[in-house]
Amino acid sequence: MTSTATAHTNIALIKYWGKKDAILNLPTTSSLSLTLDKFYTTTTVSKNDSIDTLILNGQNVDARKIQNFLNILRDELGTFDQLTITSENHVPTSAGLASSASAFAALTAAVTRELALDLPNETLSRLARRGSGSASRSFYGHFAVWHEGIDDKSSFAESIAAPDMPIALVVAEVSSETKKVSSTEGMQRAMTSPDYSSWIQNSAKQFLDIQNAIITSDIEKIGYIAEKNALDMHALNLTARQQPFTYFTQETQQILAIVSDLRHKGILAFSTMDAGPNVKIITTLNEAPTIVNHLKKEMPHLKVQTAASGPGVTYD
Amino acid sequence: MTSTATAHTNIALIKYWGKKDAILNLPTTSSLSLTLDKFYTTTTVSKNDSIDTLILNGQNVDARKIQNFLNILRDELGTFDQLTITSENHVPTSAGLASSASAFAALTAAVTRELALDLPNETLSRLARRGSGSASRSFYGHFAVWHEGIDDKSSFAESIAAPDMPIALVVAEVSSETKKVSSTEGMQRAMTSPDYSSWIQNSAKQFLDIQNAIITSDIEKIGYIAEKNALDMHALNLTARQQPFTYFTQETQQILAIVSDLRHKGILAFSTMDAGPNVKIITTLNEAPTIVNHLKKEMPHLKVQTAASGPGVTYD
Repeated sequence: MTSTATAHTNIALIKYWGKKDAILNLPTTSSLSLTLDKFYTTTTVSKNDSIDTLILNGQNVDARKIQNFLNILRDELGTFDQLTITSENHVPTSAGLASSASAFAALTAAVTRELALDLPNETLSRLARRGSGSASRSFYGHFAVWHEGIDDKSSFAESIAAPDMPIALVVAEVSSETKKVSSTEGMQRAMTSPDYSSWIQNSAKQFLDIQNAIITSDIEKIGYIAEKNALDMHALNLTARQQPFTYFTQETQQILAIVSDLRHKGILAFSTMDAGPNVKIITTLNEAPTIVNHLKKEMPHLKVQTAASGPGVTYD
Repeated sequence: MTSTATAHTNIALIKYWGKKDAILNLPTTSSLSLTLDKFYTTTTVSKNDSIDTLILNGQNVDARKIQNFLNILRDELGTFDQLTITSENHVPTSAGLASSASAFAALTAAVTRELALDLPNETLSRLARRGSGSASRSFYGHFAVWHEGIDDKSSFAESIAAPDMPIALVVAEVSSETKKVSSTEGMQRAMTSPDYSSWIQNSAKQFLDIQNAIITSDIEKIGYIAEKNALDMHALNLTARQQPFTYFTQETQQILAIVSDLRHKGILAFSTMDAGPNVKIITTLNEAPTIVNHLKKEMPHLKVQTAASGPGVTYD
């Protein structure tokens, strides 16, 4: 018997940037995301009688991170046989989109289905969080909030009841790769910033404000708040007391300048960035093609894609 | 008749980053600097009967910026003949040290000397400010404060009565050049950050705190406050609403990480950065060689120089 699940990746509009418990992946703040239609992972699991094995995009790859996670699931759910995980990842790993979000969500969904457990999304979200924090948000379509919680039980994501709206995300992938600071390492450094506690306070306010903007379908306000939250997060990296750093490259800045200029010309366009140099531009489905064309004209080497609001986890 | 003056450049420990009046170069904050012994400009002026001419390091160069400044001096001091300015600049323009600080200070000193005006340093400082804000601080040895003021008359620099102390600055010049955002442009963008007004408030506090540290020769505290002030300034660039940007390159971040590590090992070392990718490390004369050796070992392509506290303007 095999079980298959598909999870879409999500982009945080209010960021997860710091852990209060690194083992449990408990975040220092609640976060909020938009699930994307275009980028997803489909994972099939089946029992085997040797060892946990990962076949990613047809390649047999190092499965240690997955094995650790499966052992956490065995602790939580009761032990189960060794598994073969066959995963098709439709998130370009270089795009600065968290492929781990959709990967751990799809894996958690497929494993629990294979075990014939019919768990609510809140429980799946809590379990997936142990693999990758942002995976907790990928069980839900459209907008999701991940409650920071105070312990393992209380830290999980939920769907937000939101009206349909024509929000879109233009993903601008830069060409040059630079030495990367991992999310985990970046968060640790950011937490040494003297501004970290103010960031937590500001983030709590932004978390509430953006929910009001979502309820009223105010995409401009969503973009405005998300951009501020993202830039604040990147400012923490720069003001870290231990090893200040930035993910911004010259290309990142060129894109940010283009987004500012487009906004000046009346286009709804706001930037958000995660643990890498790429820029994701919050806009409307109507305005996305204008932004794409403009970026391609100004920076022909960029890879630019547009995503819309996407669905939650589905099972085959 | 000719007149010659020498001014040393200065490094801001509390930064000038924003103008409340762009014509008068009135800053949004008071700033504080250390004058450096190693980097300076020597300028000789003599009257001529054609046009204002600039010979910089033996080359006849475009004198428009200087001509504008000389015309401001003519307005302020009463008109005078056209001048030939011969300037020897011992500040590597690529080092991210403000060569304009020593250049406009030396020019103002030499011109007023040539006009046989015996003006106090406060007046010279006020005049030089019109050429380049940071030049206002280069008339004084060691530590100087530039009072932001509220108008042309009240915005000038003064010396701080400070004990002698073995403070040193290690200047680490990176090899790669990136597209540069000028100071003027950078300040304009930074002022669109929603955090700009908090920065002004924090800067006012840091301006007082660092003066207490200077009076007690507490170099570690001086470094700590200066690093915070600099990183805060660079965070403004990143959180600008119009065209967020950073001067940090990968090499900048490598140097910052090395400085953090050295500090972890007990070396007094704090970073400050201005409108460019280079890093200036605040330390003691005793510890500077350790830092230089470590930087050269880790990043052999860096150009590294050490400066100590330097003198004010001198006349030949």
